[in-house]
Amino acid sequence: MPVYKAPVRDMKFVLHEVLQAEHLLAQMPGTQEVNAELINSVLEEAGKVAEHLLAPLNRHGDEQGCQFNGGIVTTPDGFKQAYETFSQGGWIGLAGDPEYGGQGMPKTLAVCFEEMMMAANSSLALYAVLSAGASLAIARHASDELKQAYLPKLYEGTWSATMCLTEAHAGTDLGMIKSRAVPQADGSYLLTGTKIFITGGEHDLTENIIHLVLAKLPDAPAGARGISLFLVPKFLPDANGAPGARNAVSCGSIEHKMGMKGSATCVMNFDGAKSFLVGELNKGLACMFTMMNYERLTIGLQGLGLGDASYQTASSYARDRLQGRAATGAVSPDKPADSLLVHADVRRMLLTMRANTEAARALAAYVGTQLDMVYFHPDEQVRSRAAKLVALLTPIAKAAFTDRGFEACVLGQQVLGGHGYVREWGQEQHVRDARIAQIYEGTNGIQALDLMGRKVVFDREGMLDVLVEDVRAFIASEKDGKVAGFVSVLDEALNVLLQTTTCVRDASAGNPNEVGAASVAYLDLMTLILYGFMWARMVSVATRSLDADANSDIDFYRAKIHVGCFYLDKMMPRYKSVAEEIRAGCDVVMTMDAALF
Amino acid sequence: MPVYKAPVRDMKFVLHEVLQAEHLLAQMPGTQEVNAELINSVLEEAGKVAEHLLAPLNRHGDEQGCQFNGGIVTTPDGFKQAYETFSQGGWIGLAGDPEYGGQGMPKTLAVCFEEMMMAANSSLALYAVLSAGASLAIARHASDELKQAYLPKLYEGTWSATMCLTEAHAGTDLGMIKSRAVPQADGSYLLTGTKIFITGGEHDLTENIIHLVLAKLPDAPAGARGISLFLVPKFLPDANGAPGARNAVSCGSIEHKMGMKGSATCVMNFDGAKSFLVGELNKGLACMFTMMNYERLTIGLQGLGLGDASYQTASSYARDRLQGRAATGAVSPDKPADSLLVHADVRRMLLTMRANTEAARALAAYVGTQLDMVYFHPDEQVRSRAAKLVALLTPIAKAAFTDRGFEACVLGQQVLGGHGYVREWGQEQHVRDARIAQIYEGTNGIQALDLMGRKVVFDREGMLDVLVEDVRAFIASEKDGKVAGFVSVLDEALNVLLQTTTCVRDASAGNPNEVGAASVAYLDLMTLILYGFMWARMVSVATRSLDADANSDIDFYRAKIHVGCFYLDKMMPRYKSVAEEIRAGCDVVMTMDAALF
Repeated sequence: MPVYKAPVRDMKFVLHEVLQAEHLLAQMPGTQEVNAELINSVLEEAGKVAEHLLAPLNRHGDEQGCQFNGGIVTTPDGFKQAYETFSQGGWIGLAGDPEYGGQGMPKTLAVCFEEMMMAANSSLALYAVLSAGASLAIARHASDELKQAYLPKLYEGTWSATMCLTEAHAGTDLGMIKSRAVPQADGSYLLTGTKIFITGGEHDLTENIIHLVLAKLPDAPAGARGISLFLVPKFLPDANGAPGARNAVSCGSIEHKMGMKGSATCVMNFDGAKSFLVGELNKGLACMFTMMNYERLTIGLQGLGLGDASYQTASSYARDRLQGRAATGAVSPDKPADSLLVHADVRRMLLTMRANTEAARALAAYVGTQLDMVYFHPDEQVRSRAAKLVALLTPIAKAAFTDRGFEACVLGQQVLGGHGYVREWGQEQHVRDARIAQIYEGTNGIQALDLMGRKVVFDREGMLDVLVEDVRAFIASEKDGKVAGFVSVLDEALNVLLQTTTCVRDASAGNPNEVGAASVAYLDLMTLILYGFMWARMVSVATRSLDADANSDIDFYRAKIHVGCFYLDKMMPRYKSVAEEIRAGCDVVMTMDAALF
Repeated sequence: MPVYKAPVRDMKFVLHEVLQAEHLLAQMPGTQEVNAELINSVLEEAGKVAEHLLAPLNRHGDEQGCQFNGGIVTTPDGFKQAYETFSQGGWIGLAGDPEYGGQGMPKTLAVCFEEMMMAANSSLALYAVLSAGASLAIARHASDELKQAYLPKLYEGTWSATMCLTEAHAGTDLGMIKSRAVPQADGSYLLTGTKIFITGGEHDLTENIIHLVLAKLPDAPAGARGISLFLVPKFLPDANGAPGARNAVSCGSIEHKMGMKGSATCVMNFDGAKSFLVGELNKGLACMFTMMNYERLTIGLQGLGLGDASYQTASSYARDRLQGRAATGAVSPDKPADSLLVHADVRRMLLTMRANTEAARALAAYVGTQLDMVYFHPDEQVRSRAAKLVALLTPIAKAAFTDRGFEACVLGQQVLGGHGYVREWGQEQHVRDARIAQIYEGTNGIQALDLMGRKVVFDREGMLDVLVEDVRAFIASEKDGKVAGFVSVLDEALNVLLQTTTCVRDASAGNPNEVGAASVAYLDLMTLILYGFMWARMVSVATRSLDADANSDIDFYRAKIHVGCFYLDKMMPRYKSVAEEIRAGCDVVMTMDAALF
């Protein structure tokens, strides 16, 4: 019943009209062949894959789920075949290193594709994005030998990959992990330990599974500074590079979860498994962060995509469902009732979902362009500036997209009333699937702490300054234009952000708890302003496009302006009370005795 | 693993110390025997029932769910026996009419018990509260003959009841229902139609099921003014009052839902079923509202109870789970890590849950006392005043308790990280079970519309004035006392509420959409202030108790003050931006063409 339509038109708007991505890509060796035509054809093909290959398996994957039987994990019927088709299309290696068989497409484009995949079928998509993320960590940090042996297989999708961090007693606090790797004479290691919550740790989609595992050498320094990263294949490659001897790694069980039932979440046992060091000894966490930062943005896209999928069903249901009459009198007197769209509160829900989804899509592409600059731009200064923005915006993208994506799924369920609570329309599955995105890849609380702590209060590189520079440049260029009203609110909000930042920075010098107490609200404050920034840019472009040519895509631009104004009037003002909440400080949070909780 | 503890101490605090309920009850014939001792013993017994009879079946009920097979519905193993034990304890008729076998306990007390039931096992509780609610409608509106035949069986729990409103095409808009009742020579009716989303429509817990069904006579006026209420038993009582001939009513299927899996949600087919009119012809909606208003408060308690259950697991997990170090340095240097409770953001989540839960509990009891005054108070003026408060506060209790209860469940899941997403700890079930409470018994959007429309903007009885009078009386009595700071914020917020109310009332004269566009935010605004009112009262009492006797229950009162201050500083300020959102008006919501959604 729910039919997912990939938001290709909106992505073209963001990439071409708002960000002029093709001009940027044309300037950089490595991406200069990615012109507007290629972008569009990839978006359209990607849309077809999401709509016709992934989406049709989404509900079935939820209902059948993964099965565990004696160490073997079976994915839902149809997943294996779809994954093969998908792999053969080259989608797993879309942004992969061309030297090892990747397609070398820019992140700007991969971001769009990942949103579609996640919207269409998060469970199935997750196997693919983990392979892509692990490939990135291998491409950056592994030896040439490991790259040769593993990257082509991962890009072609015949092998897949996992990230193994969490242990039963060590989630956020990875310094406490107990997994041990013992060096062997041949330069390899024997790894022993148990990891939990391992997505895709075992399954039947690919002929081999490559685990990236955090562990410590017996003599490693205590805490996080003693963590190393290892590559542990399920089957050791034989002389021809094909899966050979079975390694000492096995799946102990899978989790019964709220959602994401087509994605196998495994307990993985390593019993002296042959392992290969990736990157330097004791620098494992930094190497893993290459993958984690990639995955964080991608997980943000899961929230964004599911929120959009929920919006699509909710808006189409609201249009067709006849219930009640407009407050101002019947709009369809010939019908037994008016469409739900006549009711202000139904509109409020839909507009809220859409305002957050479209702002997030623009912000995701903005982060994508910055990531491409970091990797491809010839100018060191540009690269360094972009790296700061990426560092600042990654935790925001992960947490804000998933918090607001979950909220959108809840609203999209509410629009359908009781029909949203039953399985039939798929809205309740979106809520269950979206919920994990606020938790995994570092909880959203951890993202907020990363933002407020490392990226703002303790940052010495001026990450926030770079963002402020970009926002101010936009404000300056538009302050006398058609979106002047919008821009003046943005300017005011930016000043409040800066005052609030100073306030927390000063207070935290006296009490380090100020950072933790403010962090989630601070991320929310930044998001309200960043989404305002994105909306101001989009409304500005849409206004100009309407002026320039009243006949082209009028409806698209008009809707853009409507939703932007809704955001400005109804959603953005909340930044003021969020700032007030932050300024209330940490004492009221910290003084209650632990025993009283 | 999760162990529910009924919040008996907190309920005693609310009933005895904050509301002085026993003094009120002593003044009224009908409740004057309900003294403090009786209240306490009912609370303690109720707590045992919730903890030992209902809670142990909660997870199992979710996992096994209800089964449908050829018209027969089987509840999860153990439900039938528990329901019988529960019924035999007299709990279903707790607040029932003593003339027909009810216990005649006041609503003030029933509210507490219902919260506990819902917290312990919402699915099982729902069968009981529907019977209690239907009994209320029957007691108020049915003929003596029907009362004699049905009430004793319903109170003793050998029979159960349902409310049958929704049809596939008619949810919120009941005026469109198609079910038809044709009068018969013997004064009964033959009822034909299909109802959906009928909780407990069919099950194996009781020997008979009594349906209260909305339907129209063939010649009834169009729309909601042509709806009548009918009592339709599954088995017609025989000459001895025992279940006799099977009536023409059957279950067509049950829904597959997000949660509440132990509660059977049925499609019910009435095929010329013998039916009995309840109340007057064409006044069915008003009669059903007796039940609906009862259920609305009770469903609010579902949100409240599940939020508390989630808090209990989350706070105990946070205390025991060692992860990371305090920002100010190790608190437990002898352990591998500090408790989660050292982290400001974990505290923020727990304090947010608790601030909303405890304010809601106080407000629920406050509504309970008003309901008791409506029914039992000898003074007509007192009754009428209380009735206004009940009318005003019922939609708030339903929507606010369930919205914030759901939010609490989501936070309680977040505190556990990945462990909150898997089944093991029960936190994900709370989220799934709580979600429906925002939807059924009138969606929260409908509650908000009822509040802002009928109870405020179009109200001519001065419902809001009564509440304002109560709040102002409290402010006047405390403005120079120890909670003066709290009271001054409350005073300021109350003024903003009144200004905002005037603003919407004026604007709605020109555009009726103003009410719908403001309604959800207005309910939120009222809630922020009402919870502030409850917290100010509780902090005031706690402060006095600490002053009076430093040795009794110090920890309890200290915690109360801490949580109250957290609410005041961190949560209440949001009312300002909610008011600003309301004042932005409806144009930005209504002007976008329906085709653009």
